Amino acid sequence: MLATHTRTVFYISDGTGITAETFGNAILAQFDIRPRHVRLPFIDTEDKAHQVVRQINHTAELEGKKPIVFTTLVNMSVLKIIEDGCRGMLLDMFGTFIRPLESELGVKSHHRVGRFSDISVSKEYSDRIEAINFSLDHDDGQSHRDLSGADVILIGVSRSGKTPTSLYLAMQCGLKVANYPLIPEDFERRQLPPALVPHRKKIFGLTIDPQRLSQIRNERRPGSRYADLVNCRNEVAEAEAMMRRSGIRWLSTTTKSIEEIATTILQEVRPERLQY
Amino acid sequence: MLATHTRTVFYISDGTGITAETFGNAILAQFDIRPRHVRLPFIDTEDKAHQVVRQINHTAELEGKKPIVFTTLVNMSVLKIIEDGCRGMLLDMFGTFIRPLESELGVKSHHRVGRFSDISVSKEYSDRIEAINFSLDHDDGQSHRDLSGADVILIGVSRSGKTPTSLYLAMQCGLKVANYPLIPEDFERRQLPPALVPHRKKIFGLTIDPQRLSQIRNERRPGSRYADLVNCRNEVAEAEAMMRRSGIRWLSTTTKSIEEIATTILQEVRPERLQY
Repeated sequence: MLATHTRTVFYISDGTGITAETFGNAILAQFDIRPRHVRLPFIDTEDKAHQVVRQINHTAELEGKKPIVFTTLVNMSVLKIIEDGCRGMLLDMFGTFIRPLESELGVKSHHRVGRFSDISVSKEYSDRIEAINFSLDHDDGQSHRDLSGADVILIGVSRSGKTPTSLYLAMQCGLKVANYPLIPEDFERRQLPPALVPHRKKIFGLTIDPQRLSQIRNERRPGSRYADLVNCRNEVAEAEAMMRRSGIRWLSTTTKSIEEIATTILQEVRPERLQY
Repeated sequence: MLATHTRTVFYISDGTGITAETFGNAILAQFDIRPRHVRLPFIDTEDKAHQVVRQINHTAELEGKKPIVFTTLVNMSVLKIIEDGCRGMLLDMFGTFIRPLESELGVKSHHRVGRFSDISVSKEYSDRIEAINFSLDHDDGQSHRDLSGADVILIGVSRSGKTPTSLYLAMQCGLKVANYPLIPEDFERRQLPPALVPHRKKIFGLTIDPQRLSQIRNERRPGSRYADLVNCRNEVAEAEAMMRRSGIRWLSTTTKSIEEIATTILQEVRPERLQY
């Protein structure tokens, strides 16, 4: 194990540690190093803090290098134990920004753990679950029901990235997303699927480089007509022509991550639900 | 619009701005304020930087208060324009930590944008898409195929939180997650679904408070036997008894967010895929 990395990064949180790890990863992506990652969530007692100190110091000794320790701790007594005891490089992600914010905002922070308290009575949370269910029920053109309730409707040829994008927008943004495959029938009719026409303002198209599409489809159904490059070229050309004719905004997913696709869609469609 | 908030928070990034917003949200959750959020992604040219400065300063004037400006910019010339021009409170989330890290690590950061470059050739990325597809195909007991390929198998009564948790673990952690409802047939047989038995080490159970379960099911099918409190009590008791008998680890999702459930599962199951 030790041979593959030379340094350990700890993410320590009173909550899930997801914020700490997301942020720490983004920072470390700025360096050409391959550290070992250790997330230590739910560190919410002094006992656990002492355990963490032992673990960090043990690693420091083994590796002969200071571990990098990102913390998002709001419990001050837990933080102090780690600050005082650990022989790592401590990066206190909350304190660093909370102190200047307290003085700018003129209020004290309340040191409450996590953003997920009282889930079972949170409207935001039940909306999120509802969005996930809606998006699953409306995946791949399964249902035309309640399209007026959709925040976004994605269209595109099969395997252009509609499903992961829909689920991401539901999961992370609480949006109800329907997605519809564009199929040969639509191309022959040279029109959008009729059920979608009244909702044009919410429609966004995904397209993809035919070569990449053929590669993806070949993983799913090797050697099929579905995956054939000529067929992929044809489908993509038809889909793009239709979107252009119908005035549908679209982007190419070929080199984009789900996050980048989702962010661009939010910029373009500007769902009402997110206007606050 | 202005009446509902008194302060605007900007999240500015060369990339999607998701890291900036996730982190900024976590910080601001420590304060009892309700600011307006504005995410400005893909700010990757000096022109866009000047536009951002104008937008921030316009807001500062309207509100008569310094906007809070979280940045995760790696392009130094873009950052400098915003630093120099904006009349907001600038919190440079990257620079603040990258400088001390450069000196601890003894290397310079490379100022490359985003963590999502070259998606179409990234193994990690195609694994993630594969995980999402696997988890969709194995949602709600749809398939017994290739269970040996699953990283985690979730079980629990209908509406205990299996589907959102599966999709979260696939989307955010790249894990292949199958999920199976425990149904009356299983309770009568008093045994785990036979297809799952060989994979016991990967199984994790979700349970839920019967009252909460009844409430959730009533939203879906009002007044049904499925949603009836007595029935919910019975199903939950049977499911918990079965998990106890079979030595399956489990948790109650009643007051937990998807993130908290997922984090606990990762701690308990420790999927091999994530051991690095």
